[in-house]
Amino acid sequence: MHDHVLRNTMNLVRRAYSSVASKHVQFFQSILPPHAVLSSLPPSNTPPDELAPFNTDWMQKYRGQATTVLKPKTTQQVSAIVRYCAEHTIPIVPQGGNTGLVGGSIPLRDELVVSLANMNSVRSFDPVSGILVADAGCILQSLTDYVAPHNHIMPIDLGAKGSCQIGGNVATNAGGLRLLRYGSLHGSVLGLEVVLPDGTILDQLTSLRKDNTGYDLKQLFIGAEGTLGIITGVSILTPPSPQASTNVILALPHFDNVLPLYKTVKRQLSEILSAFEFIDRTAYELAVKHGQGRALSDEDVAGAECFVLVETSGGRREHDEEKLTDLLTSLLEADKPLINTGVLSQNPAQFSSLWALREGVTEAVSKEGKAYKYDISIPLASFKDVVDATREHLDSKGLLGEHAVKHVLGYGHVGDGNLHLNICAAAYTQEIQDALEPFVYELVASYRGSVSAEHGIGSMKTHALHYSKSATSIAWMKKIKALFDPKGIMNPNKVLE
Amino acid sequence: MHDHVLRNTMNLVRRAYSSVASKHVQFFQSILPPHAVLSSLPPSNTPPDELAPFNTDWMQKYRGQATTVLKPKTTQQVSAIVRYCAEHTIPIVPQGGNTGLVGGSIPLRDELVVSLANMNSVRSFDPVSGILVADAGCILQSLTDYVAPHNHIMPIDLGAKGSCQIGGNVATNAGGLRLLRYGSLHGSVLGLEVVLPDGTILDQLTSLRKDNTGYDLKQLFIGAEGTLGIITGVSILTPPSPQASTNVILALPHFDNVLPLYKTVKRQLSEILSAFEFIDRTAYELAVKHGQGRALSDEDVAGAECFVLVETSGGRREHDEEKLTDLLTSLLEADKPLINTGVLSQNPAQFSSLWALREGVTEAVSKEGKAYKYDISIPLASFKDVVDATREHLDSKGLLGEHAVKHVLGYGHVGDGNLHLNICAAAYTQEIQDALEPFVYELVASYRGSVSAEHGIGSMKTHALHYSKSATSIAWMKKIKALFDPKGIMNPNKVLE
Repeated sequence: MHDHVLRNTMNLVRRAYSSVASKHVQFFQSILPPHAVLSSLPPSNTPPDELAPFNTDWMQKYRGQATTVLKPKTTQQVSAIVRYCAEHTIPIVPQGGNTGLVGGSIPLRDELVVSLANMNSVRSFDPVSGILVADAGCILQSLTDYVAPHNHIMPIDLGAKGSCQIGGNVATNAGGLRLLRYGSLHGSVLGLEVVLPDGTILDQLTSLRKDNTGYDLKQLFIGAEGTLGIITGVSILTPPSPQASTNVILALPHFDNVLPLYKTVKRQLSEILSAFEFIDRTAYELAVKHGQGRALSDEDVAGAECFVLVETSGGRREHDEEKLTDLLTSLLEADKPLINTGVLSQNPAQFSSLWALREGVTEAVSKEGKAYKYDISIPLASFKDVVDATREHLDSKGLLGEHAVKHVLGYGHVGDGNLHLNICAAAYTQEIQDALEPFVYELVASYRGSVSAEHGIGSMKTHALHYSKSATSIAWMKKIKALFDPKGIMNPNKVLE
Repeated sequence: MHDHVLRNTMNLVRRAYSSVASKHVQFFQSILPPHAVLSSLPPSNTPPDELAPFNTDWMQKYRGQATTVLKPKTTQQVSAIVRYCAEHTIPIVPQGGNTGLVGGSIPLRDELVVSLANMNSVRSFDPVSGILVADAGCILQSLTDYVAPHNHIMPIDLGAKGSCQIGGNVATNAGGLRLLRYGSLHGSVLGLEVVLPDGTILDQLTSLRKDNTGYDLKQLFIGAEGTLGIITGVSILTPPSPQASTNVILALPHFDNVLPLYKTVKRQLSEILSAFEFIDRTAYELAVKHGQGRALSDEDVAGAECFVLVETSGGRREHDEEKLTDLLTSLLEADKPLINTGVLSQNPAQFSSLWALREGVTEAVSKEGKAYKYDISIPLASFKDVVDATREHLDSKGLLGEHAVKHVLGYGHVGDGNLHLNICAAAYTQEIQDALEPFVYELVASYRGSVSAEHGIGSMKTHALHYSKSATSIAWMKKIKALFDPKGIMNPNKVLE
C-alpha cells in the first residue's frame, strides 16, 4: 500500500507552482510573529527535525518535503498568507491535527504548510442554545471539556479526539461514534469562516439554527478536505449531555438475524439507542486472542456467527436500564430467538470492557499481521456477502492461508451502513494488493456503495473516486474547484486528480 | 405588501428570454403524453382557468402569466424539457405543491412552469435503515403514510403537509415542527437527483448514510429554491416513530425566565424533548379571543408575561410521563419558581387542544386584522427585545392604536431561535409598511440574525438578502448561480436579484 501511494505521487502532473524561497520566508516573517514561521530556508533556518512532524502523518504512511510551516494566530493572518501565495502561485496544504488516514493533510512535494494549531480559542458558547463558536484549531477533546460543565457534549467523537482539530473534523466531514445519534456535520455545523484561495474571508459564521437566506455555501467546505479554502472558524450545535449510558453484547447464530435484530432494537430503544456495532466471528476471536476480555462463554461463542454491541444513552438511568432489560427479555423469550445470548454491562468497568472488545479489533488486526483496510458504505444486508466474496476471491487466487492472507474480517457501524473490511496478511505484497484492487472497489460499486464512508479521499483514493461518483458528479466537482481555486494552489492533488 | 411585491416585478431587468410560443408547445407535445402539456397557446388551447392554479399561490398573493405548464412523469422527460429550454433560452419555474410563502414557485412573467406533480412514486424504502427514495413530486403526507406501517416517520412536518411535495421541501430547506428533534434537511437528505439547467441529470441519489467521496454537491440544491436545477428525486433518512407523545403549557411571570427554563427543560427531558414553543401574552390572548381553549385560569394568566408549550416524544409513555411530571414538580417546588403554573395534557384531546392554542395564533391574527409577518432568527435572549423595540418604534411614529397597529406580538420556536414577529393592523397601509421596513430588517441585522429563518427568499425578499448575508457571500452565490445556470433560465429573479 505504501509503494502504491508513493508511485502515485511520482506521476503528479507538475503545474507551474512556485516553491517557497527565502524571499517568501522573509515576507512571512514580516507579517507574522517570529515563532509562527518555521522554515529550513534562510533567514529562518529551523532545524529539519522541527519540520518533520508537519511532513508526516501519525501512521508515518505519507511523507512530504515542505521547507516551510506557518502557524498563524488570526484569520487576518491566514488571509494575508493566502493572498500572498495566490499572487505568487505557492501551493498550500492546510493542516489540522494531522490525524487523517488518507494523506489529505501532508504535502505531496514541498507545498507551504499552514498549520491551524495556534488558532485555538473558543470564541463564544451559549449554554442555553448549546451553540459553540470556536477557532478551527481547537482540539476536539478540549472543546468537549469546555462544554461539559454546561451539560453539553460535542456532536462528534473520534478515537483521535485528543489530537484532531475541529476545523479538520469539519474539513473531512468526520463521522465517528456518535453519528447514529447526532447525525452528520452537515446538520450540526451552523456556520463557517473560511479563507478562500484568493485570500478573501468568507464570513458565514452565523450562530443561528435556522437561516434560509440563499445558498448554503458553507456546506461545500464540509468534506472538501481543504481543497476549496482554509476553514478558520466553526459554529456548531452541541447537544445536551446524556445523563446515563449503558451497553450490551449480543451473540447471534446467523448474520441474517442482524437486520431483524436492528429493526427490533430501533423500535424498542427508540431515542436512547446510540450505537449498534457489528463484529463478525473472526473479528471477535482476534480481539480476544490479542488481549480483550471474553464477554461470552465458550458455549455462547461456539454457536455464534457474529456479535452486536448495543449502546444506549439517555436522560435517566433507571428508565434506560428498564428498556434495555425488557429488550433482552423479549429477545431471549421469543419463539425463534434472534440471539443466542446477551451480556449486559453492570458497572462502568464492564461498560468500558465491552467497548474495548469492539474497539480492540483494530489493534488486534495490527498485532496479527499486516492489514489492508477498506472503509466502505454498503447496504446493511450485504455486509456478510462482501466479506465472504472477498474471502472467496482471495481463495480462488490461492492467496488464502498462513502464507498470504490469514484472515478476512468485517466489523463496523451497522446503524450507519459503514463496514470496515479488513484483510489481515502475513506481509504486504503486490500480489495481494492486485488481487484486492480494483476487486473491492468494483464490488462496492456494484452495490452503489461508497469507497470511503468516513475517511475521505485525500491523496490515497483520488484514483478510486469514480467507483462512487458518476462522471457527471466528478466533472461538477472539478468545475467547483476551478471556480474557487482557479490557480489550483489550495491542497493540490487532494480529492481530485 | 401586495403592492410592494407587484412593484418589484415591474422593475425586473428584462433579459433576452424567449416567451413560450406555439412551436415550442408542439415540441413539448412531441416528447410528452397529451395530458402532460397544458397551454393556452395553439395547438393545445387549454382553457385559462385550468392554468390559473399554477399562476398563483395558495395565499393568492403572487400572480404569474404563464401560458404553458408541463407535467412530466419521468426524470428523462424533465431532462429533455430543460435541454430544449436551454437551447431556446426559455425561462423555467419549477413548481411543487405551491405552498411557499415568499413567491418562489410562481412565474414573475410568462415563464414555463414545470410541475413535478406527476412524479409521485416511491422508488424504494428500506424498513431496516429507514432510508426512503422518492420522486420529488410525492406529497409529504403521503410519504408519512407510506412509512408509518414500518414504524417510521418523516423527519419534517409542516402545516402544509397535505399539499407540499418532498422536492419542494428540499428545494426550500423546509424547517417545520420537528426541526428541534430531527435536525435540518441538510442532515437528513442523503441524496438527490437533479436536472441541471443544461438538461444534464446529476445523479447523487445515493442511499448511504455515510459517503465521504468528494464535495457534497447535493447540499447546494437544498434551499436553492429551484434556481440551480430541478430536483427530481430525493433520498432521505426517516427516523423510527416515537411510541408516545405528551405536552404541557407553562405560564411564566417574566420573559427573562424563558431561557433558564429552556436550560432546565433540556437537561431534565433530554432526548425526549421534541418542541419548546414560545407565545407571548398578546398572542395567547388573541388565540383565546378567537376561539382557542383557555388552558389556564384567569388568575394564572393575570400574572403571566408569556407562555411556553413543551412537547415530549419518546419510546415509552410511562417513562416520558414520569420525566415530565418530575420536571413540573421540581419547577413548582423551587425556591424561586421559574413558572407560575403548568397544565399537563391528560389525554389525546387535551394534547391537541394545547397544540391548537399555539398553532391557533396565526389564524387569530388573521381574524383580528391585517398582518405584517416577519419570520426571523435571532438569539433566544433577544426575542422580547425585538418585539418591544418594534412596538416602541411604531408608537414613536404615532402608529400604535386601533386606527393603525392594534397589536405587536411574538411567538415561535425558542428551540430553533426562530421568532415569528407579527404586526396586526387595522389595514395594510404604506405608512405602516415604511415604518416597518427597513426598520425590522436592520434590527435583525444588528443581532446578526436571519431575515428569513425558514420561509426562504423567493421573489419577496431578494432585496433584503444583504441584511443577513455579507457582500462576499452574495457575490459567491452569484458565481455559483452563473456556473450552474449561465443563461439564467432556471427560476429567474428568485433568491438573487
